[in-house]
Amino acid sequence: MVDLAALLTKRGVYLHEIAEVVHQLQKPFSPHLTLESCLEVVEGIIKKREVQYNVLTGLALDILAEENKLPDPLFQVILKDEPLYGVDEVLGLGIANIYGTIGTTSFGYLDKEKLGIIGKLNNNAINKINTFLDDLVAGIAAAGSAKIAHNIKETDK
Amino acid sequence: MVDLAALLTKRGVYLHEIAEVVHQLQKPFSPHLTLESCLEVVEGIIKKREVQYNVLTGLALDILAEENKLPDPLFQVILKDEPLYGVDEVLGLGIANIYGTIGTTSFGYLDKEKLGIIGKLNNNAINKINTFLDDLVAGIAAAGSAKIAHNIKETDK
Amino acid sequence: MVDLAALLTKRGVYLHEIAEVVHQLQKPFSPHLTLESCLEVVEGIIKKREVQYNVLTGLALDILAEENKLPDPLFQVILKDEPLYGVDEVLGLGIANIYGTIGTTSFGYLDKEKLGIIGKLNNNAINKINTFLDDLVAGIAAAGSAKIAHNIKETDK
Amino acid sequence: MVDLAALLTKRGVYLHEIAEVVHQLQKPFSPHLTLESCLEVVEGIIKKREVQYNVLTGLALDILAEENKLPDPLFQVILKDEPLYGVDEVLGLGIANIYGTIGTTSFGYLDKEKLGIIGKLNNNAINKINTFLDDLVAGIAAAGSAKIAHNIKETDK
Repeated sequence: MVDLAALLTKRGVYLHEIAEVVHQLQKPFSPHLTLESCLEVVEGIIKKREVQYNVLTGLALDILAEENKLPDPLFQVILKDEPLYGVDEVLGLGIANIYGTIGTTSFGYLDKEKLGIIGKLNNNAINKINTFLDDLVAGIAAAGSAKIAHNIKETDK
Repeated sequence: MVDLAALLTKRGVYLHEIAEVVHQLQKPFSPHLTLESCLEVVEGIIKKREVQYNVLTGLALDILAEENKLPDPLFQVILKDEPLYGVDEVLGLGIANIYGTIGTTSFGYLDKEKLGIIGKLNNNAINKINTFLDDLVAGIAAAGSAKIAHNIKETDK
Repeated sequence: MVDLAALLTKRGVYLHEIAEVVHQLQKPFSPHLTLESCLEVVEGIIKKREVQYNVLTGLALDILAEENKLPDPLFQVILKDEPLYGVDEVLGLGIANIYGTIGTTSFGYLDKEKLGIIGKLNNNAINKINTFLDDLVAGIAAAGSAKIAHNIKETDK
Repeated sequence: MVDLAALLTKRGVYLHEIAEVVHQLQKPFSPHLTLESCLEVVEGIIKKREVQYNVLTGLALDILAEENKLPDPLFQVILKDEPLYGVDEVLGLGIANIYGTIGTTSFGYLDKEKLGIIGKLNNNAINKINTFLDDLVAGIAAAGSAKIAHNIKETDK
């Protein structure tokens, strides 16, 4: 298993920042939800294999683009974060939907609202190229949110 | 081909209300976009076969639930619009993604923000049961939004 | 939780028949795989909530069609198992992919090859209308196959 | 627009080989289908934007792996064509489903049966690394097959 937390930290993303997005998404439905429990959920998600493979692939493409090692026109598309490219969202959605449709819809919301760390990444306040990273982080946050939504329902019953 | 406009009108949804949601979604990216052109896009989308089949299926389930013809526990799940049911969102997403990933993410946004007519349906201000209808309408609006996003890009180039 | 085994039995499908399809799919990759362990996997899958909701919805539509309670043209589409309908495959795929992409591809294979019980359902050797049931069963078998594929890899490491 | 035919030729894949797979898939349902019309369909598909972006991304990853420019452990995963990696199938499925669910199921079948050129790629009879290319080609063939299936139905009516 790969230490995704370390890889994300190298790219300027801390797990507690992802946990904050999860907390913001789920707080309205679960008033007693703590930031600590959101962080635990995020820590669990980044250990899942499909999450690891999607993050490794997307991060590699961002970094290869920064190092100018991608061929044209793919390099130009990733450099400009071309809205119709779609592969970045597909990798994010692949993470978001591991806990079902709620993850997919939460990803769509985050993709538009760009809460917290996702907005910083989208503005490239961190790193030179984050075409994939913002979607990967949104995917992890959406999956976390879906996991909590499912658990709430379970405990209610 | 089925006259979906007539079926939707019977359930209290007018195409111009869906066009208004499309307009609200795309206006920020396309300041000269008119409501008329959004309506034309919506009229085109509801003629597509996959859209017709998803809408026919979802509408039938809402109406059968209203008529108390569904078996338990499915009836209870649809009556309560149980958040983890997921089949309603899946039918909406099946419409949303006919123009690619932008439709998927727009659907997620609408699912959360429930703009215009979608909000009215969600509150059951129209009909007794709209478990599927709000997601079907969000799917059509998201597909419309994605179609316009693609066309804008094409004409820009 | 719903007793899906009982509902499937009522429609002429026994869990060991689904386990046989799983066994046939995974045997080439796992020579020591027993039919018993495939049955246990299938028993676990039908307890999962998203599986239950998809099966309940599809079964209800098959039965409502048999009872002539669906409106036209939806009734005609389901009666003929119209190949472009797609909602039946979407519900099956929603089950198949709970263990990732391997489930999706296995579903596609089963949809074409219609192994064992799936073929019998497709020919309506059981019940009058199985438009949804064959895809639901293929979805369960594909998910079972994916689950075993993941476990094999884990134990190998 | 990118000349995908030229890029695929560079990797040893000729469009007529993809057309042959389409022909093999659809011939049983359409006895008068010619190889020429399958080739035209394939030529149309590789001009679509989402197809171009998925192919450009997957091809770049194969080639970067061959040139030893990918970081570990991603390099090892792609080198071994690790069955649980999944990103290669996701890019192929993203092409396959542009004409709906029939494309998705055809992709699943091709992923297992590896007809014609797909089998050659899977065995690395061409190039050193084809982890993505076989899935991209299967995706194009599946989309072609779905497009023809839709057209047959239209003309029948």
